[in-house]
Amino acid sequence: MSSANYYDVTKWPVGNPAEDIGEVFNSIIADIKSRQVATDENKGGKPGAVIYVPPGDYHLRTQVLIDISFLRIQGSGHGFTSSSIRFNVPQDESLDLHELWPGGSRILVDIPLGKDEEESTGAAFYIERSGSPRISAVEFSDFCIDGLHFTPDGSELHPENSYINGKTGIYVANANDSFRVNGMGFVYLEHALTIHNADALSIHDNFIAECGSCIELRGWGQASKITDNLIGAGFKGHSIYAENHGGLLITANNIFPRGASSVYLNGVTRSSVTNNRLHSFYPGMVVLGANSSENLVASNHFLRDLEPWTPFLGVDNGLDDLFGLLCVSGSNNSVIGNHFSEVIDSERIRPASATPVIIRLMAGSSNYVSSNHIVAVDVHAESSNSAFEAQVNALLTTEASDSLVVTAVKVDSESVRNTILDSGSEAEVVVDTKVNAFRATPSVGA
Amino acid sequence: MSSANYYDVTKWPVGNPAEDIGEVFNSIIADIKSRQVATDENKGGKPGAVIYVPPGDYHLRTQVLIDISFLRIQGSGHGFTSSSIRFNVPQDESLDLHELWPGGSRILVDIPLGKDEEESTGAAFYIERSGSPRISAVEFSDFCIDGLHFTPDGSELHPENSYINGKTGIYVANANDSFRVNGMGFVYLEHALTIHNADALSIHDNFIAECGSCIELRGWGQASKITDNLIGAGFKGHSIYAENHGGLLITANNIFPRGASSVYLNGVTRSSVTNNRLHSFYPGMVVLGANSSENLVASNHFLRDLEPWTPFLGVDNGLDDLFGLLCVSGSNNSVIGNHFSEVIDSERIRPASATPVIIRLMAGSSNYVSSNHIVAVDVHAESSNSAFEAQVNALLTTEASDSLVVTAVKVDSESVRNTILDSGSEAEVVVDTKVNAFRATPSVGA
Amino acid sequence: MSSANYYDVTKWPVGNPAEDIGEVFNSIIADIKSRQVATDENKGGKPGAVIYVPPGDYHLRTQVLIDISFLRIQGSGHGFTSSSIRFNVPQDESLDLHELWPGGSRILVDIPLGKDEEESTGAAFYIERSGSPRISAVEFSDFCIDGLHFTPDGSELHPENSYINGKTGIYVANANDSFRVNGMGFVYLEHALTIHNADALSIHDNFIAECGSCIELRGWGQASKITDNLIGAGFKGHSIYAENHGGLLITANNIFPRGASSVYLNGVTRSSVTNNRLHSFYPGMVVLGANSSENLVASNHFLRDLEPWTPFLGVDNGLDDLFGLLCVSGSNNSVIGNHFSEVIDSERIRPASATPVIIRLMAGSSNYVSSNHIVAVDVHAESSNSAFEAQVNALLTTEASDSLVVTAVKVDSESVRNTILDSGSEAEVVVDTKVNAFRATPSVGA
Repeated sequence: MSSANYYDVTKWPVGNPAEDIGEVFNSIIADIKSRQVATDENKGGKPGAVIYVPPGDYHLRTQVLIDISFLRIQGSGHGFTSSSIRFNVPQDESLDLHELWPGGSRILVDIPLGKDEEESTGAAFYIERSGSPRISAVEFSDFCIDGLHFTPDGSELHPENSYINGKTGIYVANANDSFRVNGMGFVYLEHALTIHNADALSIHDNFIAECGSCIELRGWGQASKITDNLIGAGFKGHSIYAENHGGLLITANNIFPRGASSVYLNGVTRSSVTNNRLHSFYPGMVVLGANSSENLVASNHFLRDLEPWTPFLGVDNGLDDLFGLLCVSGSNNSVIGNHFSEVIDSERIRPASATPVIIRLMAGSSNYVSSNHIVAVDVHAESSNSAFEAQVNALLTTEASDSLVVTAVKVDSESVRNTILDSGSEAEVVVDTKVNAFRATPSVGA
Repeated sequence: MSSANYYDVTKWPVGNPAEDIGEVFNSIIADIKSRQVATDENKGGKPGAVIYVPPGDYHLRTQVLIDISFLRIQGSGHGFTSSSIRFNVPQDESLDLHELWPGGSRILVDIPLGKDEEESTGAAFYIERSGSPRISAVEFSDFCIDGLHFTPDGSELHPENSYINGKTGIYVANANDSFRVNGMGFVYLEHALTIHNADALSIHDNFIAECGSCIELRGWGQASKITDNLIGAGFKGHSIYAENHGGLLITANNIFPRGASSVYLNGVTRSSVTNNRLHSFYPGMVVLGANSSENLVASNHFLRDLEPWTPFLGVDNGLDDLFGLLCVSGSNNSVIGNHFSEVIDSERIRPASATPVIIRLMAGSSNYVSSNHIVAVDVHAESSNSAFEAQVNALLTTEASDSLVVTAVKVDSESVRNTILDSGSEAEVVVDTKVNAFRATPSVGA
Repeated sequence: MSSANYYDVTKWPVGNPAEDIGEVFNSIIADIKSRQVATDENKGGKPGAVIYVPPGDYHLRTQVLIDISFLRIQGSGHGFTSSSIRFNVPQDESLDLHELWPGGSRILVDIPLGKDEEESTGAAFYIERSGSPRISAVEFSDFCIDGLHFTPDGSELHPENSYINGKTGIYVANANDSFRVNGMGFVYLEHALTIHNADALSIHDNFIAECGSCIELRGWGQASKITDNLIGAGFKGHSIYAENHGGLLITANNIFPRGASSVYLNGVTRSSVTNNRLHSFYPGMVVLGANSSENLVASNHFLRDLEPWTPFLGVDNGLDDLFGLLCVSGSNNSVIGNHFSEVIDSERIRPASATPVIIRLMAGSSNYVSSNHIVAVDVHAESSNSAFEAQVNALLTTEASDSLVVTAVKVDSESVRNTILDSGSEAEVVVDTKVNAFRATPSVGA
């Protein structure tokens, strides 16, 4: 009966969860399947099960394969702590650390990986099922997936700062419905969450940081939500990436550096990026690319300032200051009521002495940009060996050494019939008013 | 002692939860009450209990009656899968389905129902207590309530598409405080959640779909929140309905078709519908009716397109395209910074050759409509037998075959002293400027 | 092995949780520490543990000291019920109450307190650890902390209405990372949650009410979120207070009376107060003080009406109606797309016959105020002995007895270079246009 549908990895007779929790999961899933034999209307359903992972350290050396619906994997602690800060602590200080590793219900991804493996090979949890119906209602809740180490990338960076290790937390290979990822911690994975063809997915209230990329919605999909997460990718990846999705709601997230983008939408339509707090050290914070259209970008707080932490000085995403903090290549989007703070050192603008761009309409037509407030502050940036203090100091510094001139909105010639309202003064907006509508933010005394 | 306040339905000596979990719940509740005998300050409180429902299939043939505070009913899986798609699969394909039913911690509502029963009779969970204080802090978490089947409604629709079966998931009959509904799944119920006279209610992070109506807040109430849910009602009901509420916060929800309304407010005041993603196949997506006043409708993404799924072709909510996607009969409301996409086939507009209305101010006064962006696309709609693919294809189609002319804002003569700003061009707004203030969205070259 | 990392307070051999759960917690924490001896890379981590508190009443007479990371304390019920209403029930009615106290997994804070103790002395949970790394990933989930009683404050108020008792729910003394507080209930504490130097803190989906102050983020901090909570402080404190924070996201909260402020930001920069529902009985609902700069206040619903409940008549926060519902002393902030309802009795305005102010820019420069809608209603306020009914009645009353004239925006001479757009008519905005930019909301026929 149903009490048999509750499993504890530490009490399962097959395998040793401390040595290889992957073997234990796969054995439990085989057991669930062997007991789920209902095949007709009268015999009832295949209700799945919950697998509990108590707090503890569990090596995962065998990939977990999930091909049943209604499976919930649940721990008792997201267990995040900063591995990045730890790995960058000077050698002599590291002896005194209270603890070295993340914790909680923690899965240590130890899958043996060759060179140039498929991305999916390095996934701790691999979900795939073809046929009908789509696999549904798989849930991940309240545990930690830790990729442990990054590996050298050939640059001069400390190997632990490369954001590369071939490991993925959760990889969903094909169409799925009503999945949930809640209360999880992800750390030191090249890819935290990669999900193809999602419908009604919920990624809510997780802590996903110090991963190459955090959330990647690939293939296509609809009607999903990414809400109320703390997220911060590495400089090589995206905090949130989605392609060919419609009706995606990205809201109430606090996205911190240093992702190449905070939110990158690729061919995404009729979706919302609203009410997030976004912080980056580079341009290209939010990109609506590949004809992303009819989206709403509203009530977000954008902050771009400068890398304050010594180990990452000189690292960036390769974009210059003309790219825009928000860059739109698409049509019929709405950009309404956002706040932008650009806090940089005018001597470090690229290309040198360019006027940095905040909102850029690069291609497309008929976008509506209204009631955005752009603040630009010229600071002489300082960096520090202490990640936390450096960031907080940078965040709290609002005094400009000089005023910084920016282009609030730049409309390229490849983007036409846009409407730009109250988002910058005459001097701050670069727009061809023969093919775009424009109303400048009123100036004093005007 | 307190460990006695944890119950597992599969371990309770009375009743068989697989056969009738209702009997088991009622027996457990009687036990809790018999042990809660504190009557004065010194003997302490009546702390309630938690009842755990492991994953599994549980028929419910006896209604559960809850009349104690601090009761939490908790499962390990919302268990949603689409029954609607399954029931509409062609007969020959249905043999190959991986599973037929929803799952997780799943309660199958099997209450025997006569004809024309009271709505409350068909409720799986019925909560009622009079006297003081109001019943408080009842919580539902992480399980599934499945109504199993719909029944014929006399139309030519497939009986499983009628959204009628007399069943309700949770029915709260009178005044209550600080209730929580979190992480639940509701499917194939005529009414998922019906709650009277709520104070400080939280309905958060649930999956409520394929139900006639999803969330109905009746009677009156205040200071509640409906947040971060995935919701989609049937064509006969509402995804969210509230009457005579004040201070209700409806935010961060992803509401998909096919509810007659996404959000219907009836005499609701000083409430917020902000930052939601709303998708519908009909007009009347958000209705502020019966003098709903001083509400804020902001930063929402509205998409109305056409039914793409063959089984529901020809079904609608009876409203024509003049009704508006947002229709306001009330005063002093704010409609700010929303995106509207109307994606329809001009040949299917009703009444024929009418100009569809997006925002309609039907009655009342002194509403403030500012900075809304309306996009209208004329498409030749195609439908498909595959629900998911049809919806995704429709969502991703942004190319218009022709431009579609709409009325961005229509102000009826019964609504006066409104202010309409930057929400449509001169040609797109129908307003009597003798009794309303109006500033058109600037046009190119103007 | 890891199953040893799950503790149940009712099954621990040391102490009696009903008599002093604090002693039990401290004994369990000592046990966790004694077993966590990993000191190098190879021996693995210190994963922490979960401590479970089943529903029940637990006195806490010994303060719990937490100095380990990855500790989760988890109950099965937030257990909120209104003690305030109960204590104000007439004596003869109190005999018939169903229950007297909050419930769920309830901790009764019974720490013996002398006079003028340090605030931290009265904390049920005290978290402190110096050295590196910062203490991380401590989680509080799904239980209730009840301060039981307030104490006389020397005024004529009923002692249970004083909001004073020297008790704190959770007190974090120094720098911390990735803490979580979810699903908790806090009631009748002078301070519910006091947290110093937070990084990536999440306070989500809690019920924090009838406390002197609810959430206080002190010292400094960054990148945290306060989301989706039901909150209401006492008249002496703040519902949300933060100082010297950057990148704080305050969103989707429903904040009800009677806090002296709903949100008070003190030297806070680059943060968001967006999409909340805010209700207060006094001016000073949201204060951006001490040069709080570059913040976004958007899409919020502000309601200020009058105290309707007899026991608190005559109580207020000392501010008069010229202070503003939103008061800004800082620069470069954005105030966009908010709704304000001021519902008061013109005969009770202070100073008498003053024109009440809604948005006040008191000091600073370069703030951007756009697209806000102000509604003012003059009502003859009525009060009642029934808290719930009085509030609901007040909320649903929208008919003005007369029109109420307000100053929509007042810009003091100490605040310059601001931009005020579409947030009030010429007559409603007090601004020196020689040093500020101003565009009035268009009027009828203009």
